Amino acid sequence: MAKRIYMFNEGDGKNKKLLGGKGAGLCEMTQLGLPVPPGFTITTEVCKEYYANGRRLPDGLMDEVREYMKKVEAAVGKKFGDPKNPLLVSVRSGAAISMPGMMDTVLNLGLNDETARGLIEQSGDERFVYDAYRRFIQLFGKVVLGVKDELFSEAFERIKKEAGVKFDNELSAEHLKKVVKEFKEIVQKETGKPFPEDPYKQLEMAIAAVFNSWMGRRAVDYRREFKITPDIADGTAVNIVTMVFGNLGDNSATGVVFTRNPATGEKKLYGEYLINAQGEDVVAGIRTPRPIDELAETMPQAYKELLRVSEILEKHYKEPQDMEFTIENGRFYMLQTRNAKMNATALVRTSVEMTKEGLITKEEALKRIKPEVLDQLLHKRVDPKAKPTLLATGLGASPGAATGRVVFDADEAERRGRAGEKIIMVREETKPEDIHGFFASEGVLTSRGGMTSHAAVVARSMGKPCVTGCGAIHIDYEKKQFTVGDYVIKEGDWITIDGGQGAVYLGQVPLIEPELSGDFYELLSWADEYRRLGVRANADTPEAAALARSFGAEGIGLCRTERMFNAVDRLPIVVDMIMADSEEERRRCLDKLLPLQKQDFKEILKAMEGYPVTIRLLDPPLHEFLPNALQLQKEIMDLEASNAPKEVIDSKRKILQKALTLSEVNPMLGHRGVRVGITYPEIYEMQARAIFEALAELKKEGVNAIPQIMIPQVGLVEELRYLKEVIDKVRAEVERKYGMELKVKYGTMVEVVRAALTADQIAEVAEFFSFGTNDLTQATFSFSREDAENKFLPIYLQKRILSDNPFETLDQAGVARLMKICVEDGRRTRGELEIGICGEHGGDPRSIEICHKIGLDYVSCSPYRVPIARLAAAQASIGVKATVSKDKD
Amino acid sequence: MAKRIYMFNEGDGKNKKLLGGKGAGLCEMTQLGLPVPPGFTITTEVCKEYYANGRRLPDGLMDEVREYMKKVEAAVGKKFGDPKNPLLVSVRSGAAISMPGMMDTVLNLGLNDETARGLIEQSGDERFVYDAYRRFIQLFGKVVLGVKDELFSEAFERIKKEAGVKFDNELSAEHLKKVVKEFKEIVQKETGKPFPEDPYKQLEMAIAAVFNSWMGRRAVDYRREFKITPDIADGTAVNIVTMVFGNLGDNSATGVVFTRNPATGEKKLYGEYLINAQGEDVVAGIRTPRPIDELAETMPQAYKELLRVSEILEKHYKEPQDMEFTIENGRFYMLQTRNAKMNATALVRTSVEMTKEGLITKEEALKRIKPEVLDQLLHKRVDPKAKPTLLATGLGASPGAATGRVVFDADEAERRGRAGEKIIMVREETKPEDIHGFFASEGVLTSRGGMTSHAAVVARSMGKPCVTGCGAIHIDYEKKQFTVGDYVIKEGDWITIDGGQGAVYLGQVPLIEPELSGDFYELLSWADEYRRLGVRANADTPEAAALARSFGAEGIGLCRTERMFNAVDRLPIVVDMIMADSEEERRRCLDKLLPLQKQDFKEILKAMEGYPVTIRLLDPPLHEFLPNALQLQKEIMDLEASNAPKEVIDSKRKILQKALTLSEVNPMLGHRGVRVGITYPEIYEMQARAIFEALAELKKEGVNAIPQIMIPQVGLVEELRYLKEVIDKVRAEVERKYGMELKVKYGTMVEVVRAALTADQIAEVAEFFSFGTNDLTQATFSFSREDAENKFLPIYLQKRILSDNPFETLDQAGVARLMKICVEDGRRTRGELEIGICGEHGGDPRSIEICHKIGLDYVSCSPYRVPIARLAAAQASIGVKATVSKDKD
Repeated sequence: MAKRIYMFNEGDGKNKKLLGGKGAGLCEMTQLGLPVPPGFTITTEVCKEYYANGRRLPDGLMDEVREYMKKVEAAVGKKFGDPKNPLLVSVRSGAAISMPGMMDTVLNLGLNDETARGLIEQSGDERFVYDAYRRFIQLFGKVVLGVKDELFSEAFERIKKEAGVKFDNELSAEHLKKVVKEFKEIVQKETGKPFPEDPYKQLEMAIAAVFNSWMGRRAVDYRREFKITPDIADGTAVNIVTMVFGNLGDNSATGVVFTRNPATGEKKLYGEYLINAQGEDVVAGIRTPRPIDELAETMPQAYKELLRVSEILEKHYKEPQDMEFTIENGRFYMLQTRNAKMNATALVRTSVEMTKEGLITKEEALKRIKPEVLDQLLHKRVDPKAKPTLLATGLGASPGAATGRVVFDADEAERRGRAGEKIIMVREETKPEDIHGFFASEGVLTSRGGMTSHAAVVARSMGKPCVTGCGAIHIDYEKKQFTVGDYVIKEGDWITIDGGQGAVYLGQVPLIEPELSGDFYELLSWADEYRRLGVRANADTPEAAALARSFGAEGIGLCRTERMFNAVDRLPIVVDMIMADSEEERRRCLDKLLPLQKQDFKEILKAMEGYPVTIRLLDPPLHEFLPNALQLQKEIMDLEASNAPKEVIDSKRKILQKALTLSEVNPMLGHRGVRVGITYPEIYEMQARAIFEALAELKKEGVNAIPQIMIPQVGLVEELRYLKEVIDKVRAEVERKYGMELKVKYGTMVEVVRAALTADQIAEVAEFFSFGTNDLTQATFSFSREDAENKFLPIYLQKRILSDNPFETLDQAGVARLMKICVEDGRRTRGELEIGICGEHGGDPRSIEICHKIGLDYVSCSPYRVPIARLAAAQASIGVKATVSKDKD
Repeated sequence: MAKRIYMFNEGDGKNKKLLGGKGAGLCEMTQLGLPVPPGFTITTEVCKEYYANGRRLPDGLMDEVREYMKKVEAAVGKKFGDPKNPLLVSVRSGAAISMPGMMDTVLNLGLNDETARGLIEQSGDERFVYDAYRRFIQLFGKVVLGVKDELFSEAFERIKKEAGVKFDNELSAEHLKKVVKEFKEIVQKETGKPFPEDPYKQLEMAIAAVFNSWMGRRAVDYRREFKITPDIADGTAVNIVTMVFGNLGDNSATGVVFTRNPATGEKKLYGEYLINAQGEDVVAGIRTPRPIDELAETMPQAYKELLRVSEILEKHYKEPQDMEFTIENGRFYMLQTRNAKMNATALVRTSVEMTKEGLITKEEALKRIKPEVLDQLLHKRVDPKAKPTLLATGLGASPGAATGRVVFDADEAERRGRAGEKIIMVREETKPEDIHGFFASEGVLTSRGGMTSHAAVVARSMGKPCVTGCGAIHIDYEKKQFTVGDYVIKEGDWITIDGGQGAVYLGQVPLIEPELSGDFYELLSWADEYRRLGVRANADTPEAAALARSFGAEGIGLCRTERMFNAVDRLPIVVDMIMADSEEERRRCLDKLLPLQKQDFKEILKAMEGYPVTIRLLDPPLHEFLPNALQLQKEIMDLEASNAPKEVIDSKRKILQKALTLSEVNPMLGHRGVRVGITYPEIYEMQARAIFEALAELKKEGVNAIPQIMIPQVGLVEELRYLKEVIDKVRAEVERKYGMELKVKYGTMVEVVRAALTADQIAEVAEFFSFGTNDLTQATFSFSREDAENKFLPIYLQKRILSDNPFETLDQAGVARLMKICVEDGRRTRGELEIGICGEHGGDPRSIEICHKIGLDYVSCSPYRVPIARLAAAQASIGVKATVSKDKD
């Protein structure tokens, strides 16, 4: 039989899974020689046994507990249940992963009428003892016996009122004695039994209660929310710890302290303490605790001890610590230590500083930071001190917070934005023609659509905060307002959105500006030393390119050209092109687009000088540039009803006709990407010409531009071959025109399953691959992302049919397997094949780890995720297993 | 250097690729000792050289030709160009694959003024010689010199008119001499040069002309149409053959004959001949040829020779032959032989009979029949003697021909159909609610939609002829008519459709009933002896199940349940269920569907007693059962305009609202199949209950029913696990209710890429896989079939980016590779895993071959394709390489 119980001086402090975080910390500190009250830990294995037994403590466990209690008694020189010199203990939960407040703890256990009397004799402090006693009964009653806490509180408040006092500590010993009596009566009445007087009975019941709390509603919900699966933490340990009292008078105290400031990272003790108090008083907030600095004056000896302990623990754990201590009659005790939770700023600063202090290595510094937390540093966020009114939550589609006045259409957004107002554009969903509204707005909120809806993608590319799929808001465009619950928000009203959390707040909420420290850049430069993967950015504008470069992007992995088609000065030409009846007419429109497109490319290439810029030729189906059919039909019928001029109606009808002709049952799988390129080669021809001419003109200017041409949606090598001929012809023409040689890499997105399966063939023509994992995931799962995220995906996640949203994190068994096949087959054909990823996964740490493992050359992500990707890539090289960002430790 | 020329007595008659079909036949016959005029073949390799040379005959070729001409001269005792005893030859094309009429041939070559005179002296028949001469000049002029044929014809007709005769053979020698003179003048005028008199010059030019005809427009188009790629036939051979004349008087004749009747297969010479005629006269149809039987009387000796030759050739080639012969002055010559093209009836009968005659083995009988031709035997078809007016062509979506009166909606179709009229339902496209129209109609014609549109799938499942995607017809529902070109077809007018060819004809066209002979069943029973693959059918009704069984299906591989939801008595309940606001309401509707669904299953299971019936639970997204949003919106606006009652409008509005809520951007990848099953488990619960109760009740009746439950759209093993629990619970309930054990196999469609990639996991739960290759192909290519077939797929096929439509024939490199991975991984987890295919590919011979190779257990296809699949499966076992059905040989 495995050992079930460990004294603090024998347990393996590294084994959090067995001993729980708290138990491991207590063992570790004990064995480091730090002042920890004697005690022991019952392992998490026993918890599992408890449940396997049908919630019964294993046979013989309590006999073992008694043995260990003897050891504790020997260590402290007191005896559990001894009326003369009673030992009191706390019974504390503690799982492998900290779940603060989610499980139960009982303090002052061992008290009964007899031991209470003994303790009074011993301590000479009747008030203290009855105070401890009434606390014990209340806690035990609630936690172990399941008595409603209000019954105790009401009785307590009544007695206070009768006594005419306001604060608990004003109650006398007599009052408290009365409280104890009444509390016991409550227990008798509620449970039908007297309060258990036998300390071992108390202990047995408390142990079982702690185990029970593992499956309590709160704990279960918490684990689901934070994805704490059994492989991470399975069951709670129980710690039995000798009670020490911070409330034995002015020479006693209790406190919570961080070895470094968890908000700024400053190397200076940070925390607070209360004289003559128990731990729960600090938390309860009835008395105001004092900053830890003051302890140096009030209890200099204890403060020195605290400093000493801090240093030892930091050196030992190599992380800033979050500690609880108690001073009992001047004697200093450590009750808990754990790695401090810090915000991103502190995490970065302490990591860099601890490295420089020689406490940790660069590698260790890189390992300890979850890449996603860097996101906090890059965007405005809601001031943590603000307590805003939450209106609704949707999907956090583009990080950062923004505050502005609500506007319901893009034109109005533009008008007001130009006039200097701060705008949040609110729409059911956005369309390409709303693009000017994005430019004019601080942020965007939509009631429909998922993480890759138009709004989400455009906002992310612009780095503007965006919340999508916020189904709780109901927009009435005619009344120019939206309702959410009882709130009615009219055009011009202020709201604030947090695109990281997906939150929508009422009114103007104070925001904090992002600040990037030298530490931040230094840490990333260390990451660059370790990572093998390159990091590029997805960017469609010179501004985005410059931003990406400032974050360290080594090129553009995806420059989408359709956004350029959507700009206000171009969309009408594009629509004309689509409506054209002949190739000639189409070519006339394309001729008008050529100089504009060339200018786009020149600016982006210049902004990324010296680095490759992968330009994806037109991808969406043409009907995406036309208005919606349902809307058009309504407009036409309305126009007819109002006897509008025939020409107006006819022109609308013509567009409706075209929209219907072009419309598709499944546009995701339709006439788009390379399929448009092949059916209307003149479109890709124009784009290729714009690229080659841009390159030629930049070369003349002496700019080192490195464009790459990428064909989307390829599934057949013949598609690539066909278009290579078209593009090579254009290149030859431009080479003649400018009198120079123009070399441009020719490659493809791998986003169609068949491309991955036939990579050996595709690589015969393609010089590079770039995984478009958004589409690849859609095709592999047969999930249309928009439909899935609005319909069944939440249910799948909730029912645990999926453990992760595959659009956020690469699916290992399916999509990544396909990618691996593709990488291997492609490289077999063309050894020097360059392979990257430009889907959203390129900015997700767990996906980056997979990309590293299957041997990609680079990842490409939105500019704001470039720092995250640099760090994640380094971690992948070092071998850190990426975990979900919500994990707690 | 490879040998360029082969005498007929030295060439390898098996090597059609080198010698062409005609040359190989002449060599083979010569070497069998049959009477073939001496000659030789210039190989197809020389043709390739000719093109590689820039259309120049290889150096030295003509020297070699002269050598071989010497050998011919020696054999026949005449000399080429000798004015005394001139040798004349024909120069004939002949590629590896016969391309009748697509390439050129020159006859009577070697004639000039001198040799003509010599020939007159020799034959004593001036008229004959000038007739041959004028034919030669015209043919040479047209084929070799490129002179317009009309110029010759016009001159000839003028001379006939001047001579006052009606038929060519009434012209005298003098007349013909004049023709020769005028023809030569035409050549001089048109080419600027005299007609070449030098026989070797003539020969050289003719050889080049034959090579040129390989790349002639007609030949190139033909090869594209019939997919004759260079690996099948690359270049033409040229045959130089001693001329023999069937027009040397009444002791001469020429004829074309089949060794067996190519329409019925009867073992009896079938063909015709003409006395005193050249081959082209038979074809020209100026004189009426006589049935071959009569030759026995008119030229008994020659007829005996013909019989002898026929027998030798059949024995040799093991196929009925299609032969050309000429009798010159009583002497019998074979000019050509090739395997006879036969219709399906003849093919089946001759195969079976030749096997019984001991000419071929069963295996050989099975090998020679392209499985698709069996289709001809199973459906009505247009009488080949009819000459109907073709109105338009669309896609041949469901084979067979039907004639009926045009009706434009399902209700009217039902009304008229019940009244006994024959109906063709004509729609832009059909929807589930048109189902009663299908039952009432002989056939269906749609202007939109592809091979898997609703109309196509439903029609195929009912075995009714259907033409889809017939874009040329324009339907005006209001006027109740359609127009096509200049035709206006009104409701009630007759049309005829051929769902095999995709043809739409005007009026009532006579049809031929299918007849299934004993030979047909015998042949298929032989196929069963050879095939390893099982053959099941896709069937949703008891009628279809019975039909499939009569064709030899060994179970139902796919029984779709959604059709049952669409029946008129159920759709309203289904709509209520969809509109339900709560699970309870939904359950109430499902309770109403349960007995109906149970009855469906009982009937089908009974019809397939003893064989497995794989029932697929509901697959389509729920919105498919609701009307179209655009249509609803229009209805609502019209109702509003006409001040309809508020309740009517409101109820429509409610449905529109629901339709919009449920509507999806990409329904193919949306909330359907298992995803509906998981979000609304009560639906699958009801279906499972219906299956188990049907099984229990049939068991009580003593019926050996074998249902299998198949979950569609699975991509994650957790989906299967989740629903297995739901279904197992239902099973336990039904087992209790009926007091018996109910075992039912539980499996999944493999139609989602991820399922194929994670087959090892899926097989932990699934007891069988059935490839849904329609969806799997869509997902692998990212092609939405409906969109692809209406938009870019035709262009892809035309530009040869795809060589086949992947929805018709399994894509080997992509989809089949994925299937192979799936089969291997699945079987590794569960050795006894049963794996089949139920996509449309299950009835396609080339796909069946792939299924055989990757080790599936069975294929399942529509009932009418079961015989085809049985034969194709046998061929796959035997190792016959399946080829496209349009191949010619």
